[in-house]
Amino acid sequence: MIREPNTLTATEAASSIASGVLSSVDLVQSCLDQISNTDDQIKAWEYVDSDKALEQAKECDRIRRQGKSIGRLHGVPVGLKDIIDTVDMPTQLGTAVFQGRQTKKDARLVERLREAGAVIMGKTVTTELAFLHPSKTRNPHNLERTPGGSSSGSAAAVAANHIPIAVGTQTNGSVIRPASFCGTYGFKPTAGIISRSGILQTSETLDQVGCFGRSLADIGLLGDVLGSYDQNDINSFSRPRPKMYDGALSDPPVTPNIAWLDLPFYDRLASETREGLNAINDILGAQVSKMTAADQLSNLVAVQARIHEYEICKHQSDVFDQSWDGLSDTLKLAIKRARKISSDEYSDALAVKLSAQDFFADFFTEYDAIIAPSAIGEAPFISEATTGDPIFCTLWTLAGLPTVTLPLLVGENEMPIGVQLIGEAEQDGRLLRTANWLQQYLSEDAK
Amino acid sequence: MIREPNTLTATEAASSIASGVLSSVDLVQSCLDQISNTDDQIKAWEYVDSDKALEQAKECDRIRRQGKSIGRLHGVPVGLKDIIDTVDMPTQLGTAVFQGRQTKKDARLVERLREAGAVIMGKTVTTELAFLHPSKTRNPHNLERTPGGSSSGSAAAVAANHIPIAVGTQTNGSVIRPASFCGTYGFKPTAGIISRSGILQTSETLDQVGCFGRSLADIGLLGDVLGSYDQNDINSFSRPRPKMYDGALSDPPVTPNIAWLDLPFYDRLASETREGLNAINDILGAQVSKMTAADQLSNLVAVQARIHEYEICKHQSDVFDQSWDGLSDTLKLAIKRARKISSDEYSDALAVKLSAQDFFADFFTEYDAIIAPSAIGEAPFISEATTGDPIFCTLWTLAGLPTVTLPLLVGENEMPIGVQLIGEAEQDGRLLRTANWLQQYLSEDAK
Repeated sequence: MIREPNTLTATEAASSIASGVLSSVDLVQSCLDQISNTDDQIKAWEYVDSDKALEQAKECDRIRRQGKSIGRLHGVPVGLKDIIDTVDMPTQLGTAVFQGRQTKKDARLVERLREAGAVIMGKTVTTELAFLHPSKTRNPHNLERTPGGSSSGSAAAVAANHIPIAVGTQTNGSVIRPASFCGTYGFKPTAGIISRSGILQTSETLDQVGCFGRSLADIGLLGDVLGSYDQNDINSFSRPRPKMYDGALSDPPVTPNIAWLDLPFYDRLASETREGLNAINDILGAQVSKMTAADQLSNLVAVQARIHEYEICKHQSDVFDQSWDGLSDTLKLAIKRARKISSDEYSDALAVKLSAQDFFADFFTEYDAIIAPSAIGEAPFISEATTGDPIFCTLWTLAGLPTVTLPLLVGENEMPIGVQLIGEAEQDGRLLRTANWLQQYLSEDAK
Repeated sequence: MIREPNTLTATEAASSIASGVLSSVDLVQSCLDQISNTDDQIKAWEYVDSDKALEQAKECDRIRRQGKSIGRLHGVPVGLKDIIDTVDMPTQLGTAVFQGRQTKKDARLVERLREAGAVIMGKTVTTELAFLHPSKTRNPHNLERTPGGSSSGSAAAVAANHIPIAVGTQTNGSVIRPASFCGTYGFKPTAGIISRSGILQTSETLDQVGCFGRSLADIGLLGDVLGSYDQNDINSFSRPRPKMYDGALSDPPVTPNIAWLDLPFYDRLASETREGLNAINDILGAQVSKMTAADQLSNLVAVQARIHEYEICKHQSDVFDQSWDGLSDTLKLAIKRARKISSDEYSDALAVKLSAQDFFADFFTEYDAIIAPSAIGEAPFISEATTGDPIFCTLWTLAGLPTVTLPLLVGENEMPIGVQLIGEAEQDGRLLRTANWLQQYLSEDAK
C-alpha cells in the first residue's frame, strides 16, 4: 500500500474494506499507531482502549469474510466527543467533576454508528461541559495554538490522521470553528436531523450534532449514518432526511447563486481572512450577490447567548450547585451572569429566534447558499486562553440552518482558515452539492 | 386511474407518490373508503382515526410539493398490530383488560416508520395478549372462516385492500399462519433485525416482528424500513442488516438448491396442501432434495411451548394476577399449565433451542432454502374456535430463522394456502431472492 491506512478518508476506507483490499484490523491498528506516536503532544483523546477497538475491527473482518452485506461505515473507526454516552467507555464531559462517569446506555447516534458497522475508537477531548473554558488539546498544525472548542479533540484527531471521521456538537460554533482552525471539513446538519438523546444537554433549543472529516463525501456519509428520527428529542423531526452523501458527490443542475451578507461583526475578521474571502468572491464574480444584512440579524448574537446561558443553568443546575468548586472561573462567571436572566427575557429571546428562522425560510428561494467566514482567522495561541471567537457561527446555529466549513484558505503563519457555506433548512444535500461545486469551481480557476 | 389506489402495492404507491402521479391524500382516502365499506364485516381494525390519517397524508403531500427528498414509504399507509405502542393512538393488546390503554411513547419500529414517511393508518385487531384465543376478525375470502392469529387484523386488512402493508408479530406462527389463511405474503425476518421495544412482551426469547404485503418487494421494503439496532432489545444485533428489498428484486447467480425435510407432524397436513406441495416439488425436480429430518428436530415443538408459556407468565404475571377474571378460558388454562413449568425445565428448553440454532448454522451452506407448508391447509371455520395449528412455523421461529410465505396454492373451497420458504439466519435478502426465483420458475412452468 502506498498510503498508510490511517490517511485514507472514511469513504475510501469503507470501499476498500467492502472490496476486501483492506482489513478493518489493519486500518484500526494504523490509526492506533498514529495516536500512540503523536497524542502525547496533541492530547486529542480522553479515552482510547486499543484492545476494545481491535476487537470490534476483528468482528467486522469476521463478518466480511462470511461475505455478508457491509454497512456504510463497516470497519471504519470513528471518534466521539466525550459528552456522547457510550455503554462500554466512560463519558467524562470534560471535567474532573465527572471523572470515571459510566453510563448504562449508548447515545442514540452511537446505536446508529454501531448499526452501520463503525468501530467506536474512543472519546475525544471536549472543553469543560462543552462550554468555553479551553481544553488540554493542541492544534496539530502548531502545538502552540488552540484547536478551538468545544469539540477540540474531534477536530484535532481528524486533522492529525488519528481517525478519518469524528462526531462533535455545536451550540454556537463548536464544530465549524475547530474544523476551521484544524483544517478539516466540518458539517453541522439542520437542527433535528441527528438525535441528541444520550448527549450532555447544554441547551435543549440550540445544541446540535456535527461531523468532522477529511472530505465532503465523508461528512455527508457520516451525516447520513447519524441521522434518525427520535421521539425523545424535541428538535427531532420525522420528515424524510436529505441524502447528504449523494449531495456531496453531485453536481448542481444549474450554476448556484451565492449570497454574501455584510454583517456588523465582520470588522473583527483578520485581514487575511477578509482578503481570502474577497479573492474567492472575485473569482465567483456574478455568481455571488453582495448585500447588507437586514437589521434584525444584528440583534441575534445576544439572543443566542441568552438562550444558551439560561438553558445551561436550567439543565445543569444540580451539577453547578453540587460541584461549584470543581468548575472553571470561565464557567462560574457565565453561570453568575446567566442566573440573572429573567424568564421574560428568555421567552423574548426564543421569540426572536423564531423570527430568525422565518427570515431564512424565504431567503433560499433565490440563493443556494450564503458564503461567510468560519472563524476570525488562524487559530489563536494557547497562551491567549481562548478557544476563539464563535460569532461567525452564531446566526446560523441559532436559526438551525445546515452549515459546512471547507479548508480553502491558509493564513500568513501557514495555519488553515475555513470558508463557510450556509444552506436552507432540511436541504443539507443541496448545501453539500453547492460546496462540491464551489471547490471544483475554485480549483478549475486555479489551473 | 384504472386501478383504485387502495389496490396498489406499497412499492407501486411509493413510486407513484415520489413521481407525483398520486397524492398520499388520494391513496389514504381510497384506503379509508375501503375500510368504511367493508370493515363492519371483516373487523380487521381496532382503531382508525380518519382525520389523523388524512392529516399525516396532507403533511406528506406538502413535503412532496416542496420537492424535498421522499422517504422509502413516504405517504404510504401502514397498519400496526394492536400490541405495538403508538403515542397518538391507543394500544389495547386485544383485551378489554387494557381498554383505552394509551402509551406515552411510540415503539421503536414506529419511529422507523415515521422517519420513512409512512402514514400510520391505525391499529389492527390482535388476539387476546397476542396469544391463542380467537379475535373478532373474519377472513376476507370467506367471512365464516378465521383469518388466523395472532396478527389477525394485519393479515385481513392487507388481504381486504384496506392497506398495502401491515406489521405483525410471531412467537410461534402468528405472521406466517394468518398470511397463509388470508392469501397475502408474510415475512418474518431473522430474530433481532427488527426492534421489539414498545411491543407487548410475551416471550423475550421468541417474540419476533413480521411483515404482511401483497408482493415480495413490499415485504422486503417494509423489512428494510423496520429494521434497526436497538440496545434495549436483548435479541437486537448491531451487525449489518441484509438488504431485503434488493433481495426480493434480484435473481440468484446460480439455480438455488431447495431442501424438503420430512417432519413427523406433517401427517396433520390437509390432503390438498400435501398434494400442492408435491406438485411444486415435482416441478422443481432435481432442484429439491428430500430428506428425513434429524431426530433432534422432532423434540423442538414441545420446547417452543415451554419457553413461550414460561416467559409469558414471567413477563405478564402482574396482569394475570390482577385481571384474572377478565381473561379468556384459553389463556387461563395455558397459565395454569405454564405455572407448573420449573425453572430447570425452562433452562433445559433454552439449551435445546440453542442446539437447534447450531443445527441450522451449517445447514444452509448446501441449501438456499427449506420449502415447507405454511399451515395445515385452508383457514378453519370460525365455529371451530381456533386460529389454526401453528406447528408448521414452530421450528423456524424457535431457531430465529427468516421465513416467508407465498400465496401459491388454492384449496378445494377456493381459500388460499401458502407455501413457506425458510432461509439462513441474517441472510434474509438471499431468502427473498430465492422466493423470487421460485415464483418465476413456477410461473414459467405454468405457461
